[in-house]
Amino acid sequence: MAAGTARNFPVIREAIGHADALYGFKSGFDRQALNLGLKSGGYWPGNADKGLTNHQSTVFLFDADTGRCQAVVGGNLLTALRTAAASSVSIKHLARQDAKVIGMIGAGHQAKFQLRAALEQRNFEKVIGWNLHPEMLVNLQEVADEAGLPFEAVELDGMREADVIITITSSFDAILKADQVSPGTHIACMGTDTKGKQEVDPQLLVMADVFTDEVAQSISIGEAQHAVAHGLIQAADVAQIGAVINGTNPGRTSDAQITLFDGTGVGLQDLAVAATVVERARAAGAGTEIAF
Amino acid sequence: MAAGTARNFPVIREAIGHADALYGFKSGFDRQALNLGLKSGGYWPGNADKGLTNHQSTVFLFDADTGRCQAVVGGNLLTALRTAAASSVSIKHLARQDAKVIGMIGAGHQAKFQLRAALEQRNFEKVIGWNLHPEMLVNLQEVADEAGLPFEAVELDGMREADVIITITSSFDAILKADQVSPGTHIACMGTDTKGKQEVDPQLLVMADVFTDEVAQSISIGEAQHAVAHGLIQAADVAQIGAVINGTNPGRTSDAQITLFDGTGVGLQDLAVAATVVERARAAGAGTEIAF
Repeated sequence: MAAGTARNFPVIREAIGHADALYGFKSGFDRQALNLGLKSGGYWPGNADKGLTNHQSTVFLFDADTGRCQAVVGGNLLTALRTAAASSVSIKHLARQDAKVIGMIGAGHQAKFQLRAALEQRNFEKVIGWNLHPEMLVNLQEVADEAGLPFEAVELDGMREADVIITITSSFDAILKADQVSPGTHIACMGTDTKGKQEVDPQLLVMADVFTDEVAQSISIGEAQHAVAHGLIQAADVAQIGAVINGTNPGRTSDAQITLFDGTGVGLQDLAVAATVVERARAAGAGTEIAF
Repeated sequence: MAAGTARNFPVIREAIGHADALYGFKSGFDRQALNLGLKSGGYWPGNADKGLTNHQSTVFLFDADTGRCQAVVGGNLLTALRTAAASSVSIKHLARQDAKVIGMIGAGHQAKFQLRAALEQRNFEKVIGWNLHPEMLVNLQEVADEAGLPFEAVELDGMREADVIITITSSFDAILKADQVSPGTHIACMGTDTKGKQEVDPQLLVMADVFTDEVAQSISIGEAQHAVAHGLIQAADVAQIGAVINGTNPGRTSDAQITLFDGTGVGLQDLAVAATVVERARAAGAGTEIAF
């Protein structure tokens, strides 16, 4: 995206007026990888009662040379993995190399994925966590245990100890205040994907260098929406993480700087992940081939 | 749609910058039939050289109760059939009962589908046709032969003989003039699905009672776009064919009236056709069941 060879198409997201469901598509085309297609699905709040995941999605890949449907890939696990990969990539490129303490705000199902992927990026020595409902912190404890790291439940003030913070909640009010973040911290805000949602103090986006997957989404449905709406920052203050990855944006330039990644989630991530899965499934003889 | 229990979601249509292709989605939800999903695909002009259809599409149906993908249905033939069904339905509800002569403007691949479906609706006694490239009129001759009807190639002035006219071209200029249409005629304009395309004189939309599948599309990308842009008619002058089918709009009320159906094509048609195909395939033991 940052190189201008891939783009997302407009997002469709509709309340369908049945089963309280939200349904839609994220789609795009990567001209270099030739990934074309969409992820379709949404949120069905009644699914849990049926033993199904509330978030349901399926990825459809198309042959960019002919427009024929090429693969249908279950998207539930892949969405969890790619969302975790996004904050992990932001840590790789923006966190201090010597980061030791990772702080988690949010301890639901998705938080486990985020933490697991984050731990691959630095030699973390400790996990700290906060959740509105403290009884869910066992989720974080479990991942810390897997990695052989100590886990500590903290109040929000305790986040000052963290070198990296991931927020992964479905909050509609700022949880983390600006003075609860120490200089040099990298924050990945992963929970805000809708107008109205909010995880951190807008002042944090003023203090931090802000990066995102897609600027247009960041300022409209992402964490940056509030700072932009209040006139605290502008679209031009939000940089693409892809530019950092590609080396055209320096990213972190000092140990004292706060960096903030606003992960909103784009269709191109889903296509990239699904295309890799199809390639591996082919190589492994997994998947089902259908004449179609 | 006319009853307010089904709606289409916004259409996505993008020039992808590869293979000169246009790619996108038409989608929607029918709350009564519980048809949820989308048709995805587009136009790949280089396909013909590869022995493939230029228009490629696939329909994906979702379970409205859970959001899980339910069926994947090839859309190429179904799109041709549903487009033909649309003008056929308009003839059923809007043409005079005593219509004898059907006139075709356009004689390409899709024109055969339109004509075949149209002939089911009235006791037609003759087919007349015009095409920019007259050598293609054999396509219409072929369908007329199948039905045991005489076929006659005519100039556009000859269309005055027709009781029903179907236009199915990819023209960007008005082909049929207002004075080439006799009182009492029903016209189905099926070719205009993009900004800029045009098949008939905008004056015809002033003279006629205008019906469409979806008003918003009719006045923006359908045949009515030109009459509306020139201030000759307004959105309120275009009625939903669904209202005629449901009996809340009287449709044709005199033998002298010209009726015009602007068929733009909506996702709900694709979903309805695909859902029926899946149902029949299940009953016939056709199709492939996949654990997914």
